[in-house]
Amino acid sequence: MVNGYTGNILRVNLSNEKISIEVLDEIFCRRYIGGEGFVAYYLLKELEAGINPLGPENKLIFACGPLTGLAIPGTGRNSVGAKSPLTGGFGEAEVGGHWGAELKHAGFDAIIVEGKAKNPVYLWIHDGEAEIRDANHLWGKVTGDVQEKILEELNDEHIRVAQIGPGGERLVRYACIINDLRNAAGRTGMGAVMGSKNLKAIAVRGNQRQEAVDKEKLRAVLKIFNETLQQRNAGYFEFGTGGNIMEESASSGNLSFRNFRDGGFANAIALDPNTIKETLGLEKDGCYACSIRCKKVVKIGDPWNIDSKYGGPEYETLGALGSNCGVDDVRAVCKANEICNKYSIDTISTGVSIGFAMECYEEGILTDKDTDGIKLTFGNAEAMVQMVELIGKREGLGDLLAEGVKRASDKLKNGSEKFAMHVKGVEIPMHEPRLKQGMGLGHALSPTGAEHMTNLDDYSIAHKRVMAYHGAIGILEPLELDDLSSKKVRAVVYITNWKYLFNALLMCYFVFWRYDHITEIVNAVTGWNTSLWELMKVGERISTMTRVFNTREGLTKKDDWLPDRFFKPHTSGALSETKIDPDKLKNAIKTYYTMMGWDENGIPTRSKLEELELDWIVNP
Amino acid sequence: MVNGYTGNILRVNLSNEKISIEVLDEIFCRRYIGGEGFVAYYLLKELEAGINPLGPENKLIFACGPLTGLAIPGTGRNSVGAKSPLTGGFGEAEVGGHWGAELKHAGFDAIIVEGKAKNPVYLWIHDGEAEIRDANHLWGKVTGDVQEKILEELNDEHIRVAQIGPGGERLVRYACIINDLRNAAGRTGMGAVMGSKNLKAIAVRGNQRQEAVDKEKLRAVLKIFNETLQQRNAGYFEFGTGGNIMEESASSGNLSFRNFRDGGFANAIALDPNTIKETLGLEKDGCYACSIRCKKVVKIGDPWNIDSKYGGPEYETLGALGSNCGVDDVRAVCKANEICNKYSIDTISTGVSIGFAMECYEEGILTDKDTDGIKLTFGNAEAMVQMVELIGKREGLGDLLAEGVKRASDKLKNGSEKFAMHVKGVEIPMHEPRLKQGMGLGHALSPTGAEHMTNLDDYSIAHKRVMAYHGAIGILEPLELDDLSSKKVRAVVYITNWKYLFNALLMCYFVFWRYDHITEIVNAVTGWNTSLWELMKVGERISTMTRVFNTREGLTKKDDWLPDRFFKPHTSGALSETKIDPDKLKNAIKTYYTMMGWDENGIPTRSKLEELELDWIVNP
Repeated sequence: MVNGYTGNILRVNLSNEKISIEVLDEIFCRRYIGGEGFVAYYLLKELEAGINPLGPENKLIFACGPLTGLAIPGTGRNSVGAKSPLTGGFGEAEVGGHWGAELKHAGFDAIIVEGKAKNPVYLWIHDGEAEIRDANHLWGKVTGDVQEKILEELNDEHIRVAQIGPGGERLVRYACIINDLRNAAGRTGMGAVMGSKNLKAIAVRGNQRQEAVDKEKLRAVLKIFNETLQQRNAGYFEFGTGGNIMEESASSGNLSFRNFRDGGFANAIALDPNTIKETLGLEKDGCYACSIRCKKVVKIGDPWNIDSKYGGPEYETLGALGSNCGVDDVRAVCKANEICNKYSIDTISTGVSIGFAMECYEEGILTDKDTDGIKLTFGNAEAMVQMVELIGKREGLGDLLAEGVKRASDKLKNGSEKFAMHVKGVEIPMHEPRLKQGMGLGHALSPTGAEHMTNLDDYSIAHKRVMAYHGAIGILEPLELDDLSSKKVRAVVYITNWKYLFNALLMCYFVFWRYDHITEIVNAVTGWNTSLWELMKVGERISTMTRVFNTREGLTKKDDWLPDRFFKPHTSGALSETKIDPDKLKNAIKTYYTMMGWDENGIPTRSKLEELELDWIVNP
Repeated sequence: MVNGYTGNILRVNLSNEKISIEVLDEIFCRRYIGGEGFVAYYLLKELEAGINPLGPENKLIFACGPLTGLAIPGTGRNSVGAKSPLTGGFGEAEVGGHWGAELKHAGFDAIIVEGKAKNPVYLWIHDGEAEIRDANHLWGKVTGDVQEKILEELNDEHIRVAQIGPGGERLVRYACIINDLRNAAGRTGMGAVMGSKNLKAIAVRGNQRQEAVDKEKLRAVLKIFNETLQQRNAGYFEFGTGGNIMEESASSGNLSFRNFRDGGFANAIALDPNTIKETLGLEKDGCYACSIRCKKVVKIGDPWNIDSKYGGPEYETLGALGSNCGVDDVRAVCKANEICNKYSIDTISTGVSIGFAMECYEEGILTDKDTDGIKLTFGNAEAMVQMVELIGKREGLGDLLAEGVKRASDKLKNGSEKFAMHVKGVEIPMHEPRLKQGMGLGHALSPTGAEHMTNLDDYSIAHKRVMAYHGAIGILEPLELDDLSSKKVRAVVYITNWKYLFNALLMCYFVFWRYDHITEIVNAVTGWNTSLWELMKVGERISTMTRVFNTREGLTKKDDWLPDRFFKPHTSGALSETKIDPDKLKNAIKTYYTMMGWDENGIPTRSKLEELELDWIVNP
């Protein structure tokens, strides 16, 4: 039995096959917590500036948090980080499932993978030990086959596997890492980094259970939590993500329609899990210890023949591969989702890359010659599915699209740039910045490019009940969705820092944790006397570290901006008169910098670094 | 019954005798809390820049907090604020006793006194009503007589009185306001402002009891609190302030000896309440609802004949009128304390002014001619007591010293300036900045001049147990007393903001509240879902408002500095080789500015104001 805060780090150098274990002290754990906090610390501390993200000098870090592995709903997650091959800056993604908890049970809070194996390998980590094993026989295989093989050869069906499919091997720049076949550490290309290291998979298994320092206190919080869970999460219980907002998102203009161009299409409701539950044979799956079970599982026969072990599409996937490509056939989206998970490529970037290609095709920038005859028009479900597979294999036009829309448009030119919907090279996820302008600001500023994991959802502060919930972080009055005043910036700053904390604790947003409960849970597990104040400062610390990392890699304030498209309204629908005002956005970005204690160029000041105890950055 | 957060403000204009009541909304109360928060808000909002602090344009504000009046130990306090006649900037002081609770029971959270009465008056506030009454018959009287008279004429022995004695009437610049004869809103000359308005007293009485929204929760926190109270506050229970640290303070050099010049003297222990309990007939008194009862009551007969109704000396008084004047006769100090409370003059400023005069006398800058023959040497107990009375009456040399050491030395010149121990015109309290250098930094930066109510006591973070207590605000490692690095500045910033919160909630430091308990108590009383994060932001908000106020009044970064004496060691004792390094102090001040989000001139940036929801200052 070990305390939650006790951190063991497994360091594996694939070049020289050296494996070592490092024990972290309590103050370090309290200051950086875990997850994205550990990732930010080690990348900043250990990577040299300017390295090739796909070279052996990059490090790939898997990290859990102090709560991971305990029976607390919404904590079955882990973080993966490295210098990103998409942005050239800070790369990180979180992922649900069971792998993180199993890693913790195997005795480790984090793994730092260094170097590059000569030949394909996988890691086998079990009860405090680790070994590098040959993976020549697994290379080239899709994720389902790999998992089956590993469980078979290690002879334990309870093993959990994080891995890459052929997309990661082939360095698709937005390749992801797949846990348990259906959970993706999706964004910023962590799967490509794993592929570049010839690391096919990490299999984990262990029996070292954590215990809370104050078990009674933990039980008491979870009791209150469980009593109100059903009411807070009704939508998620029944349909998972998208189940509660797909219809609303379609009508409000929040979904992307045809590469963020249009305001809707007739049959968008066909993508809503509420309407299609039976068609899909929809079932539910969950992460470790989570009672919500928000993960979809779909069973669809001819002609799609979707293997249910790869799960089903999340809201983001329904949007990116569905409405964003003009596709209203939810079964095609499910198929595309299955292929993404087989090949380990990010559904959001994949969908947005295909949407980009569709618009280029319709505009004549791409032709049948480029597509090998595929009629790549918006709404062509079959073409969409074909393109997903080509990207996963880096074949035909897929090879270009596997670079992401930024690099693809840099190559295509001819005005294709204006269809490349990305920030810092990362494709925009499925909440419309013109509708939720605080989220637009967040996209522009996020160190990992456009993303939805540390970003404010403006809905959450648009309602009268805001004080009763967000009052704990001083947001007392509701704010309009299209507000970009300093009041909104303040909310973005506070909520973003709060979400960095989530990514350090590896807690899930869908559980709708109350601020006070999180503090109590951390204290019960660790025995600390922490407060929301200290925890918010951890979030601010992580945000600031990622900014320092990007600055060091040459990203500047010029990279904090949105695609031009968002400064014009939709062609139709609810937002046909709504756009982002670039002057307001510019002001908001400036205000964000100074509210964060960054200078006018967006570089954290020395005093801010010192205040956040990051003086080791100032005086290394 | 009313919720803790519901705020009623009584506004009294003494010039036109208009009385009105204003009801505050919940969001306002949550943002500014009460006490120093309300004071800072209304002074900033309602005073015109550049007014005469002793003119009718100044406003005198009395404010309670949401907890005042409830049966919670350590909350029997109130705040008093106005533009300060000592600093020309933000003036504020807090005071214990029973008056604040009684004001709340009378139905008011705060009183704003405007204008100036034609003739002496007092206010009589009872159960939601208020009247202005004639005080001609009270003018010139000492506090004890006034209280007796008022209780008699209003015919209620449970009435509580806040008032000024002759020192306030005569505009001694550091006159204080006395509650219940023995509790002083001591610093920054609030009694002089009261005197300038011809307001002799405010008598309060009421039966409108508050109730906590969640009584059960409040009971639960107080249960834990009470169980551990005795152990946390042992020294205070037995001897009050000074009882636990006087001996240590003498030997460590923490006490001021002879106007901060020397390192100690032989019989300093004679001032320690531990050693003199029986000689003094020491008894104890407490504030409203407080079980600690840390207030001394002394009974001393011939030749001093001290009236016990005026209480006994606090630590600060024992230091300022004792060791600081070289006086080791504790009975003389008790007598001086009694006179201060009769005349309503601040014991700290009085003691430091006399210490200043003693050094000037020994250095030949003041002569027997100036003192009317009083041999004003260090250690002359009788002379010290005589001078206190002369200051209270503004007679002889007392008239000059009643101006405070800054103005006195400006007039005397001849090198007296280097003996004037003040910051921004406010005399230095009794913790040695050369020993506790974080406190030294705090003195330099405090908006109310040198002071001990929002200032870090470096002892509190010098011990290994720091993480278990201050970890809640992210101070995880102990720091040396003489550290002035950015680590110390960070601790000063955090703890200062925390203490501003105390002055808004009107909670007492001597109760040693745990951070989590305070949050829980505020929530139980108000029904809010606040957190330590939001509460710390309230503290930061108040600190920033006071800074804006001072900037508007023309105070600049030049005013953020310490007397030269602190840059040289003591002449003897524990600190005979310890001084403050002016370069380190300069750097620390610069760092403090930027950590607070103030510019290089110490002026809060627009973004910081906006982040703290003080945009009404930016766009009035």
